[in-house]
Amino acid sequence: MNELFAEVITIGDEILYGQITDTNTQFISNKLAEIGIKTIRKSSVGDDSSSILSVLAEATQRANIIVLTGGLGPTKDDITKHTICHFFDTNLVIDEATLAHVTAFFEKRGRPMLDINAQQALVPKIAEVLFNDWGTAPGMWIEKNGVIYISLPGVPYEMKLLMEKRVLPKIKSLFKLPCIVHKMIHTCGVGESFLAQTIELWEDNLPKNLKLAYLPSLGIVKLRLTATGYDESAIHGVIQSQFNSLINLIKPYYFSDVFDAKLEAIVGDLLKSKSKTISTAESCTGGFIAHKITSVAGSSVYFKGSIVAYHNDIKVHQLHINPSDIDNAGAVSETVVAQMAQGALLKFDTDYAIATSGIAGPDGGSVDKPVGTVWIAVASRDKIITKKYTFGSIRENNITLASVYGLKMLYDLLQESN
Amino acid sequence: MNELFAEVITIGDEILYGQITDTNTQFISNKLAEIGIKTIRKSSVGDDSSSILSVLAEATQRANIIVLTGGLGPTKDDITKHTICHFFDTNLVIDEATLAHVTAFFEKRGRPMLDINAQQALVPKIAEVLFNDWGTAPGMWIEKNGVIYISLPGVPYEMKLLMEKRVLPKIKSLFKLPCIVHKMIHTCGVGESFLAQTIELWEDNLPKNLKLAYLPSLGIVKLRLTATGYDESAIHGVIQSQFNSLINLIKPYYFSDVFDAKLEAIVGDLLKSKSKTISTAESCTGGFIAHKITSVAGSSVYFKGSIVAYHNDIKVHQLHINPSDIDNAGAVSETVVAQMAQGALLKFDTDYAIATSGIAGPDGGSVDKPVGTVWIAVASRDKIITKKYTFGSIRENNITLASVYGLKMLYDLLQESN
Repeated sequence: MNELFAEVITIGDEILYGQITDTNTQFISNKLAEIGIKTIRKSSVGDDSSSILSVLAEATQRANIIVLTGGLGPTKDDITKHTICHFFDTNLVIDEATLAHVTAFFEKRGRPMLDINAQQALVPKIAEVLFNDWGTAPGMWIEKNGVIYISLPGVPYEMKLLMEKRVLPKIKSLFKLPCIVHKMIHTCGVGESFLAQTIELWEDNLPKNLKLAYLPSLGIVKLRLTATGYDESAIHGVIQSQFNSLINLIKPYYFSDVFDAKLEAIVGDLLKSKSKTISTAESCTGGFIAHKITSVAGSSVYFKGSIVAYHNDIKVHQLHINPSDIDNAGAVSETVVAQMAQGALLKFDTDYAIATSGIAGPDGGSVDKPVGTVWIAVASRDKIITKKYTFGSIRENNITLASVYGLKMLYDLLQESN
Repeated sequence: MNELFAEVITIGDEILYGQITDTNTQFISNKLAEIGIKTIRKSSVGDDSSSILSVLAEATQRANIIVLTGGLGPTKDDITKHTICHFFDTNLVIDEATLAHVTAFFEKRGRPMLDINAQQALVPKIAEVLFNDWGTAPGMWIEKNGVIYISLPGVPYEMKLLMEKRVLPKIKSLFKLPCIVHKMIHTCGVGESFLAQTIELWEDNLPKNLKLAYLPSLGIVKLRLTATGYDESAIHGVIQSQFNSLINLIKPYYFSDVFDAKLEAIVGDLLKSKSKTISTAESCTGGFIAHKITSVAGSSVYFKGSIVAYHNDIKVHQLHINPSDIDNAGAVSETVVAQMAQGALLKFDTDYAIATSGIAGPDGGSVDKPVGTVWIAVASRDKIITKKYTFGSIRENNITLASVYGLKMLYDLLQESN
């Protein structure tokens, strides 16, 4: 068959006005690229049918896969479905499965189902429904004259789940796509450029059919190795051998090769496998480490609790920090953060603890302790490790960085005790 | 003159393939909206001339202001300038001012100027140069047949400065622009569809020059009222009077009309203005409420601390919950969450407290307490309010919803005590 070309279309005035950031199109073109489908155009139009009709007509001339997001909600300004009917000269019919799903959705919440909610079960007659387990607006799949039209809700988490669970598997089942194998290498605690320098020689000698991408986020740099070809087992072989030699170069920073691994989940798995428990004592991170740990399903097995000791009184009364240490060394100091970690171990009777104390900013900095100064401690029942970090000036970044680095310090401590 | 319609075009493979997030188009359409110019289409295409030529031709049919970003760098995959010459059937000429600027730029840094750097001074003959004090790639302004074409570098900070210092002032000097006024109405604790039904009559009777948009996110629905016209004071008058009547319909859910308001910051401002303090006792939200509160700069003034009581032992030992209540009513119950809130008030000696206990999922649900069941309590020193919510099946959404609803319950309690 011919090569597949995709276009991604976002519908919504709020994106045109620039009032919300469109993250959907990036996610979609990324996912399509991962299965070897090239996006050739992205467009955003407003919630008006003439714009939607013209962008659909134009895309039909260029692409054979067209993904639309947005405009499937129940409210007045959402007109995508009616416009799709107009475009394909069809009409809306009730999808019984979706209606039952929407009805149950409201029953479960003990909320009355309104007409406009029931209308979510209306789909164009010629559309195949992509069932939305995660919301009330169904996805739609329409094929006409060799072009596939996919319409998804604009709510990011619903769109993402529909892409991953419905759209991508269906596309893969329909077309013989080149085999593209990805290997994700997760690192923490090293900058993108230092990492690039460290692996420069290895990267320069990569075989032609392998590509390396740097995917940096706060505290984490993911390296994505991508191999393309038609001999699947050969592809897997070459990517695995390159992976092995890469790992040897970056051992101190590496923590997982699971594609969508999260550091907090990796740490959780280690704790579970060792039947150990964890608690946190947080000042500058304000509960964000506890949130990260408990964002993992099943974390109640190993996470017992946290104290957010924001005010110094709380540090003294709840974690038994020596007040004179706060007076002399300051709350942001090695001795205080170490006592916080030990305090958490005792208070929650856990095997491990993470503690943070720092200046998140924007205010509160000084010459010797500028904004971004953070002390982190990780403790086991017989060992305690402290580190000082100097991050930047942006509050939310400092909170995230301190949380990620704290989790990585715990990961390293858990590795030791193997 | 006729109304101005803008299109924003981004050029670059890295955006098309989803390798980088495009923040430029949002900034540009936002700035255009602020001076009353409506963006009617956004497109992104790759670094190939045929795509650039076709998107330019299409945009010329629809818009009278076309802003392009990207593809102005010195490297060979940057072909925007040559393609623009092709499109306007003109040729590149040296802009002496830019050449002098680029030369000085490299002299100042003691770096040799390469041919490809000198080429940055080449501009299409028919273009007016938008001088770029902040980088080496000049902006360009071309007018043809009543359409204005503006080409800007893709480097965000250069693009932003060129927009603010060159493009917007020039547009404003050329046209008498309509005035567009936005009013944002933030609501919490009500679904988009229920809200739509509540205000249906009001919405149906909105004057023609007013438009309403629903911007839903987890737990929060923002309503954006947009009014357009030439008489600025009249516009402000009409939007204010419509705003007033809207507020009366949605009082229980409304919490702010500050354009980019965040609930946690609004609650923080209330606490600060009353010189009151807050703490949290969190089970299912796992510290996320504390994180939201402490994500606000200056929150240390009113936030003292939190206990994340994930394990029942912690609820009993740290918050003095009656163990028999946990045995009889269960940890997810009104009596336990009420005791948690009171426990936090005492433990942290604060004026207010928020407590949560629920089943975030995916496991742990039962017939009478399905996944998504959450009890929330807010307490002052003389009052305690408890509510039961039934959210959905997705863990991270349940955590977010419980946190947002808890903050809204506190907001309501703070309002009462006025």
